[in-house]
Amino acid sequence: MTFPAPLRGVVPPVITPLTEKGEVDTASLRRLVGHLIAAGAHGLFLLGSSGEAAYLTDAQRRTVLETAVDAVAGRVPVLAGVIETTTPRVLDRAADAVRAGADALVATAPFYARTHPAEIAGHFRRIRAAADRPLFAYDIPVAVHTELPREVVLDLAADGTLAGLKDSSGDDASLRRLLIDPRRTTTGFTVLTGSELTVDTALLAGADGVVPGLGNVDPRGYVRLYAAARAGDWAAAKAEQDRLAALFALTEAGDPDRMGPNSSALGAFKAAAHLLGLIDCPATAAPQIPLDERAVARVRTHLAEAGLL
Amino acid sequence: MTFPAPLRGVVPPVITPLTEKGEVDTASLRRLVGHLIAAGAHGLFLLGSSGEAAYLTDAQRRTVLETAVDAVAGRVPVLAGVIETTTPRVLDRAADAVRAGADALVATAPFYARTHPAEIAGHFRRIRAAADRPLFAYDIPVAVHTELPREVVLDLAADGTLAGLKDSSGDDASLRRLLIDPRRTTTGFTVLTGSELTVDTALLAGADGVVPGLGNVDPRGYVRLYAAARAGDWAAAKAEQDRLAALFALTEAGDPDRMGPNSSALGAFKAAAHLLGLIDCPATAAPQIPLDERAVARVRTHLAEAGLL
Amino acid sequence: MTFPAPLRGVVPPVITPLTEKGEVDTASLRRLVGHLIAAGAHGLFLLGSSGEAAYLTDAQRRTVLETAVDAVAGRVPVLAGVIETTTPRVLDRAADAVRAGADALVATAPFYARTHPAEIAGHFRRIRAAADRPLFAYDIPVAVHTELPREVVLDLAADGTLAGLKDSSGDDASLRRLLIDPRRTTTGFTVLTGSELTVDTALLAGADGVVPGLGNVDPRGYVRLYAAARAGDWAAAKAEQDRLAALFALTEAGDPDRMGPNSSALGAFKAAAHLLGLIDCPATAAPQIPLDERAVARVRTHLAEAGLL
Amino acid sequence: MTFPAPLRGVVPPVITPLTEKGEVDTASLRRLVGHLIAAGAHGLFLLGSSGEAAYLTDAQRRTVLETAVDAVAGRVPVLAGVIETTTPRVLDRAADAVRAGADALVATAPFYARTHPAEIAGHFRRIRAAADRPLFAYDIPVAVHTELPREVVLDLAADGTLAGLKDSSGDDASLRRLLIDPRRTTTGFTVLTGSELTVDTALLAGADGVVPGLGNVDPRGYVRLYAAARAGDWAAAKAEQDRLAALFALTEAGDPDRMGPNSSALGAFKAAAHLLGLIDCPATAAPQIPLDERAVARVRTHLAEAGLL
Repeated sequence: MTFPAPLRGVVPPVITPLTEKGEVDTASLRRLVGHLIAAGAHGLFLLGSSGEAAYLTDAQRRTVLETAVDAVAGRVPVLAGVIETTTPRVLDRAADAVRAGADALVATAPFYARTHPAEIAGHFRRIRAAADRPLFAYDIPVAVHTELPREVVLDLAADGTLAGLKDSSGDDASLRRLLIDPRRTTTGFTVLTGSELTVDTALLAGADGVVPGLGNVDPRGYVRLYAAARAGDWAAAKAEQDRLAALFALTEAGDPDRMGPNSSALGAFKAAAHLLGLIDCPATAAPQIPLDERAVARVRTHLAEAGLL
Repeated sequence: MTFPAPLRGVVPPVITPLTEKGEVDTASLRRLVGHLIAAGAHGLFLLGSSGEAAYLTDAQRRTVLETAVDAVAGRVPVLAGVIETTTPRVLDRAADAVRAGADALVATAPFYARTHPAEIAGHFRRIRAAADRPLFAYDIPVAVHTELPREVVLDLAADGTLAGLKDSSGDDASLRRLLIDPRRTTTGFTVLTGSELTVDTALLAGADGVVPGLGNVDPRGYVRLYAAARAGDWAAAKAEQDRLAALFALTEAGDPDRMGPNSSALGAFKAAAHLLGLIDCPATAAPQIPLDERAVARVRTHLAEAGLL
Repeated sequence: MTFPAPLRGVVPPVITPLTEKGEVDTASLRRLVGHLIAAGAHGLFLLGSSGEAAYLTDAQRRTVLETAVDAVAGRVPVLAGVIETTTPRVLDRAADAVRAGADALVATAPFYARTHPAEIAGHFRRIRAAADRPLFAYDIPVAVHTELPREVVLDLAADGTLAGLKDSSGDDASLRRLLIDPRRTTTGFTVLTGSELTVDTALLAGADGVVPGLGNVDPRGYVRLYAAARAGDWAAAKAEQDRLAALFALTEAGDPDRMGPNSSALGAFKAAAHLLGLIDCPATAAPQIPLDERAVARVRTHLAEAGLL
Repeated sequence: MTFPAPLRGVVPPVITPLTEKGEVDTASLRRLVGHLIAAGAHGLFLLGSSGEAAYLTDAQRRTVLETAVDAVAGRVPVLAGVIETTTPRVLDRAADAVRAGADALVATAPFYARTHPAEIAGHFRRIRAAADRPLFAYDIPVAVHTELPREVVLDLAADGTLAGLKDSSGDDASLRRLLIDPRRTTTGFTVLTGSELTVDTALLAGADGVVPGLGNVDPRGYVRLYAAARAGDWAAAKAEQDRLAALFALTEAGDPDRMGPNSSALGAFKAAAHLLGLIDCPATAAPQIPLDERAVARVRTHLAEAGLL
């Protein structure tokens, strides 16, 4: 496939269905992938944060990619996260992803190790040189504890290292300055927002698309939102976003005294997908604490209020 | 080997010698291991932060452990870092380490993923249950961005999950409270400080030993420091620590406009080991920026001033 | 004056003109206030971060408020920052502000001291009870190092403690959820964004107005932006915002090796106002380092490119 | 008084007794000051974090200083905190403190405003130039959110701007490097640790003294600890420190679901002083939440276990 430049539209970060024993549930993954494409997704992002990449072994990551690539069968581009601490380890994952048939790679800045902006730039250049696939930078300071410097991203866009950015920085002011920079606007550089709560506004500001975790639960809503924005109907886009922002409250279903916000949000996405019949089992990977019955009931209420049940 | 409880003394976090091409230099690693044991090290910690664990592929990590275990030949305990983002990935590394013959495992709290204290506790319990080796918690918030809660550590000490703690938190006030807690003092629980600048004071406070990165450069200095402290000669221990603290300035040899403090420190440890003839090549792993000639000259000056050249 | 509920429109955070000796330049302040109102500002916010409140003595703060209130002469509402570490100190500043004739007060959460959400709520309740003026919460984690919890803001909106929020959190996802919450939408609660780079998108999301530091330099631009948004002409609003986002680059005029980003931005706002003839002297308060000639030349270039010179 | 260089010994950061209505209880303050001096304190630090400086109005701060200076009557040096956001505001507080008779001033780096190291240096130079008193830098990143760069402190020691440092950074590795630096060791520069849990080790490392919040509760313990360390009896010093570290658990008396750790610690210090008969009322300043009866009972238990009741 010729990878679109820019890549535009709704690109859900696909959750990874697991069995009770923690193995990848490939049948559910196939079903979910089919559901998302049928709903109008313009691409799929496997092995991102919503995909629990940080919790999957290398073998599981390979299984996820092979399954998804096969299920997608070329209908939409498949982006593969290659989440690892540093360059040599990312190169191993990138080789796996290329072998599995991914259309593009998505890498963060180094983490655990602390690095200088010049080292971050070298990191992306080495990955791009080693793997013959379009490369996206994944800016996610809440996980990586470094915010990608705007100047580094723009330099790497200008020299062809990066095909795009998945922005989960939450720093919309910096994003705005990147979106209007000539180094980005002249290169077909893709900008996708990772914030499912500000999609209408990101699109108004010039972003190309969105990678919404909540898109696992309501992909049609995000596709409608995107279509309204592209049609210039900002009132309709806002109304759809407001509805989805209300639905997002399901991520707080878990008891904050018993688990972290991450476990609650991932658990809720999976509980919702399970209640909607998209996956067989709502299990999340260890050491995440599962939602209890009361939390699942809260998820069900949110789905019902959103008209999804 | 029966693993000592507590483990006491100087346990250098062994740097990983690399070739220019980035491969593990097993001959240099054997030489370095021999040198450290000859200098009096009471144990060795492989695949820690100083060992560039975050930069090594899984295959390289296995090579490091197999080489070190063989070179040590049971003379001192070998602790193996199993640095990975979450439980399932740590379990893979732990299986590798056990297979390679490590005497104990050292794991951090989950990173990249954000976790709740209850999930951190579950993380360590699962690792201990899966791997039949003493387990140390590695508290290193500068890398992991979570400080291990004192109560969690003490609970895991009391129930036998943890054999010890490698404390690189820099939070000596919290460490003091842990050291005097009955849950720690009644269980043979090992506390090693990871701060090479405060070893005399950590030993006075009750720590069992030290894991000093600078111990790759001057292991005899740390062994003298430890011996003086055990003999109750705190003035001698302080004098030795002051000398080593002055030597530590070599970690700032790199140009801060060109590289991060991590690259500078690791590059300086390796440049020093190279200048001392302990390893064949001072290369650090990608994407770290290597020290230039001026920086290496600074390292040489520090070694000379410390009487090591 | 009956304070508008909600307060809508462009409310510049007025810079505080100083003389070379660091005294408040009341004549320049009167001129600037007149200029902003003539440009169409819907309100003025004195003694905010752009007003260098943290750098002004209590006497200087009183002078600023008395001068501004007199110059405004009731034409638009005057909001007064009461920036102090804790409740008892804010109460002193609030009494000063009421005496000087401010129409509303703007207070942050406590800082320096670390406080619990319940204490933050008590802080605002005590201020509201003591000062008979509408009270705005100022959410500025970059200065205060606490983000106001959304639930606390909504509770204080519902019970009438807070009339509004000035949001400089940069957390647009959380802001979106606040904007759609029934506790906010039923109470005439005002939400103003403090981010001058995302005004079009904040207005699309439902914010009532904006407090743009850059509005000291180009108030007409922000008034045009606001009018286009209110008219539903989002393409025009976006074009105006993009132009202002490009102009915002003047805040980086200062040399980052010599001064902090704050000094650079405040220095640039004042240099621009000086070049535009709005104030007599571009001095900033101690210990901020002043812009040098090269930096001022950069500011001049940005103004020229924006057609403001 | 000729101010000692260096200042050595135990310098409690005196809590500020308040009445139920929140006014300074000058009679209790006199009694407490007398008690601390009788216990052997080598100096007193008024208006620090333990003194609730951030919660006191300017008038209350003046009352505290005037009362304390009068009660001390020259028996030991009085250090006065001048905690304010920036230079011009600190200068006002410094003038108040000099007028009230303080022997030395203690200032933090600017806060709320973000500043560059060059601006921090200018800040201290201006304060020293304006106030004819020895000046101490107060390094307290938990409140100020900047750690004082070691190089800045050493430059300001070398040029005579700073007479000393009160170190509450908790960064003992950096402190160690400062203690051995020739710029500090040749100038009579005072280093006091603000950590009440690591006094023995700080003294071993070369610190001159300690500013222990817990010293309000058990000043004799800290005086004994200091004397043992000065006599080179490190085993006795350690034993005393361990006892005090156990007593420190009283700072966690407050319910963490209802209040912050700051309110709990300050409330506990005051509850203890009240139970010991040193002050008439345990009230803390608004908006801090007071300890409830169960919390006070916990404080009482800790005092009893420490043999203080």
